[in-house]
Amino acid sequence: QKAGQLFSGLLAMNVVFLGSAFLSSMIFNHVAITLADVWILLSILKVLCLCWITYYLLGTSRQPHAVLYRDSHAGPIWVRGSVLLFGSFSILLNVFQIGYSALLIQCKSKVEIVFPSIEIIFICTQAFFLWHHSKDCIQVQHNFTRCGLMLAIATNLLLWLLAVTNDTIHMEIESQLREVERRFEGKAPFPHPYLCNDTTLCTCPNTTICKVFQKGYILLYPFNTEYCLICCSVLYVMWKNVGRRISHHHASHIKPKFRLQGVVFGPLLGATAVIIGICVFMVYQVQATSSVPNRQVFVMYYSYYIVLLPLMSVAAVIGTIIHALEKKELDTLKNPTRSLDVILLMGAALGQIAMSYFSIVAIVATDPRDLLNSLILSYSVLLIFQNITQNVFIIDGLHRQPFAAAAEARHMGHTGQHTVASELPGEEDATASNKQEHVQMPPGKEEEMKEEQNHEDYDQRRVSMLELGQEIRKVSLSYIQSYSHLSWKRRALREISFFLVLCNIILWIMPTFGAHPVFENGLEKTFYGYSTWFAIVNFGLPLAVFYRMHSVGGLLEVYITA
Amino acid sequence: QKAGQLFSGLLAMNVVFLGSAFLSSMIFNHVAITLADVWILLSILKVLCLCWITYYLLGTSRQPHAVLYRDSHAGPIWVRGSVLLFGSFSILLNVFQIGYSALLIQCKSKVEIVFPSIEIIFICTQAFFLWHHSKDCIQVQHNFTRCGLMLAIATNLLLWLLAVTNDTIHMEIESQLREVERRFEGKAPFPHPYLCNDTTLCTCPNTTICKVFQKGYILLYPFNTEYCLICCSVLYVMWKNVGRRISHHHASHIKPKFRLQGVVFGPLLGATAVIIGICVFMVYQVQATSSVPNRQVFVMYYSYYIVLLPLMSVAAVIGTIIHALEKKELDTLKNPTRSLDVILLMGAALGQIAMSYFSIVAIVATDPRDLLNSLILSYSVLLIFQNITQNVFIIDGLHRQPFAAAAEARHMGHTGQHTVASELPGEEDATASNKQEHVQMPPGKEEEMKEEQNHEDYDQRRVSMLELGQEIRKVSLSYIQSYSHLSWKRRALREISFFLVLCNIILWIMPTFGAHPVFENGLEKTFYGYSTWFAIVNFGLPLAVFYRMHSVGGLLEVYITA
Repeated sequence: QKAGQLFSGLLAMNVVFLGSAFLSSMIFNHVAITLADVWILLSILKVLCLCWITYYLLGTSRQPHAVLYRDSHAGPIWVRGSVLLFGSFSILLNVFQIGYSALLIQCKSKVEIVFPSIEIIFICTQAFFLWHHSKDCIQVQHNFTRCGLMLAIATNLLLWLLAVTNDTIHMEIESQLREVERRFEGKAPFPHPYLCNDTTLCTCPNTTICKVFQKGYILLYPFNTEYCLICCSVLYVMWKNVGRRISHHHASHIKPKFRLQGVVFGPLLGATAVIIGICVFMVYQVQATSSVPNRQVFVMYYSYYIVLLPLMSVAAVIGTIIHALEKKELDTLKNPTRSLDVILLMGAALGQIAMSYFSIVAIVATDPRDLLNSLILSYSVLLIFQNITQNVFIIDGLHRQPFAAAAEARHMGHTGQHTVASELPGEEDATASNKQEHVQMPPGKEEEMKEEQNHEDYDQRRVSMLELGQEIRKVSLSYIQSYSHLSWKRRALREISFFLVLCNIILWIMPTFGAHPVFENGLEKTFYGYSTWFAIVNFGLPLAVFYRMHSVGGLLEVYITA
Repeated sequence: QKAGQLFSGLLAMNVVFLGSAFLSSMIFNHVAITLADVWILLSILKVLCLCWITYYLLGTSRQPHAVLYRDSHAGPIWVRGSVLLFGSFSILLNVFQIGYSALLIQCKSKVEIVFPSIEIIFICTQAFFLWHHSKDCIQVQHNFTRCGLMLAIATNLLLWLLAVTNDTIHMEIESQLREVERRFEGKAPFPHPYLCNDTTLCTCPNTTICKVFQKGYILLYPFNTEYCLICCSVLYVMWKNVGRRISHHHASHIKPKFRLQGVVFGPLLGATAVIIGICVFMVYQVQATSSVPNRQVFVMYYSYYIVLLPLMSVAAVIGTIIHALEKKELDTLKNPTRSLDVILLMGAALGQIAMSYFSIVAIVATDPRDLLNSLILSYSVLLIFQNITQNVFIIDGLHRQPFAAAAEARHMGHTGQHTVASELPGEEDATASNKQEHVQMPPGKEEEMKEEQNHEDYDQRRVSMLELGQEIRKVSLSYIQSYSHLSWKRRALREISFFLVLCNIILWIMPTFGAHPVFENGLEKTFYGYSTWFAIVNFGLPLAVFYRMHSVGGLLEVYITA
């Protein structure tokens, strides 16, 4: 098994390095290696992936005993949903691109229609494959499947790299364009690096439809990058699950459902934050992109963050403290999905933290007493603090035994054996003393279970009616007390995670759709020099965006299991 | 435990990011952040580390029950030896620097004597600490010790980063200097970035002693970078071992000794490679640094590699095949040292592989049919292949049950219980049939064990003298046959690993002491542009150098356990 993992990993590494070398050559030496060369390489990889996926769908997965086990943790609904959502946006993006190229067919080569078509087929097939097979623990053709999965991961990583580098080129050109606009005060056509290499020749013939294609392309672009990263993470979990055998007990978890009941303040506060954030974002976008950016808009933008980030940090810290108080059992079963989640959270946070530290050093070294600079300084410090506290909160939450599973384990213990006292201290404590506080059950379940227990007690001991009445009274009293005692913790956890979900959504929207103050305020750009700061942002920003999206997923899981 | 690891890891991450931001600021904005600022930051970190190490030596480790277990795998003698060796070279380096600064005291500030003094104290204390305590599994003050270790790791990483960036600045200045020299054909003083910022003012007053300091500084510089990386890896293993409890059986391995007997071809071939390599290196250095570099010297350099690398790859492939044939039991016990070794091998190889792929793309895109270019192309391809095969061979070898341990396990099995037949199929097979080939024992041990077995047999069954004589004859016959049958495998493995050790040493010497053809041949430099290629080499070369050194360690381990 180790050998298969090693070899498929080496395969992916070589493909990624070859692709990165191609990409770098394209960026730094446009003449020798063109974008078309990179596209040819990627198309070959995509076609290979398509062949493998087809073979998997028709051959491997239909063999007898191919899929005996399915990993219940892998590919939760929100992940598969976002694969579908972002996948369809990416397809729309490619349709726009084909339409745009078809309109300007006289000055473009026909390959610019061929490549997006391959991309559409690839996205569709991959989304179908991930929707149906992301939980598979395949038991046949281990090594071939591993190599196929690694090839798909490498292809998606390279697509992401291409998208990220192109995204930043687009940013660069946009900022240059703004300067040109400022100088001439006229309307220049938007020269997208992909769509049009020489702006002078290719201008939109039909203004409305062409503008729609252009704007749609720019708006949908960020979804494509997210799509590639999500596919990578799902494929990686599948790769880890190849050949894995799951014990029956482990596989038979009851999935906790998503319910909105019992949360009030979190959604309210979060919605307020989102609405204010959208207003700030729109003012910022209008102010910062259409005319000369003034300081006011930056002050507004950073003030919003400086108010929001401490709230989020405090919420995360309180959540961590509640987690510590709860003393819930830790879930220590092997779970590749969760390990990956933790690594991705920590890894993606590095991008934001690195950028913040670079900002801090730049500001401290120049002039920290200026108003805007002191705002940026506190913004950076708060971002680091917020990232760390939120990571600790999510990781802590993911390692807790999910609520329903714990209840189910008790349930099974009761119906199965009667000698489970040592394993279930909470249950015993609840009947023994009313002051115990670590029984965590939903009202319906607990009632059901108590009734069952009472029934058993009746059968076994044949107590008198008086005794039974007393016991029922005691149990219901303890239930009410423990519920009212516990529910504040569960409710607080749910409020906090819901609030954080909404905050992370707005913090995801803002950089995704174009607010890049780290680039536009000009402070770090002048300190480090254009190209250096560009490289740092190029590394940090896509990770920061991915971090917000991934946090939303993690927080939703914490919300559900709380 | 997880919480402690998480928090100390976060501490280290923050320190490393802050330091990297300082370093980058120094590199890209010399005015705002000077080298002195970075030195002040590093000195503060060093003093903090010194305080913690002193506290550990005098306080933590002397508490009752502090060090109950020692990890026998951690800090093997070759690692601790290289810590001492490279540490003393680093001290010498700092002494040279102090001497140089003292000679030029009139044009230098006094801090340039203070900082190296702190560095010397830090190196001495750390080397002492690592020599005596690298095997500790500390059982008290877990979290404080973890934080201290992580602080030390972060400090060493930052020292490495500083050394690497300075090393490349030194390379850059040297290459610029050569051009100046070429133009004027005069002797310019060597302007080292550290020692002298303005060459016009500070020239050596006394030529001999000053030249010695300068040359010694340049020659000893590479050892400093290696020292920091080795310390990091040892400290990381200590960090993983904090709070670890080791079962008695696991701890009581017999350490296999390093013996030279029985290997002939490996040392011979390897020594030939080393001698030829040194000649090539000297010719290269003289030709490439003193005058205009001509193509001949590059052809010679690359030809040497193209002959050597296939030999190494073939040796590694044969070694892997022999490993697969041997069917030795895999050692699956938890072993942080080995996991780290594997990660470091794979991670450090990435540097070389990335550089090779960049070279390949550059050459294919320009003109692969030119003689020198085709040589560089095959050199790059072979390097990738060699790195991968060698990694597979080493990782495979590290995961084999060491020979002596396997023998010992059998030994214990015999003296303890008699019902170990199912666990020791090799032993049974050896007495049952002479054609079995997977008994691997050193002659002395096996004889001893057979005697013991015979003795037991005698006691238990009380066989007649005739029967005993027959059995002895049978056993000795089987022993001779199995030994002669097995020894070619063990011998081949030892020959191969010894050969690879010597090859890796020469491949380590060449880039360490200044042969950087990737930079000097000018091909990739013109293709990617100066600064881009500079950044790639800056990332790849220190890792490639570290990879060679680390491979030597891994191969020595494979040699010993074979």
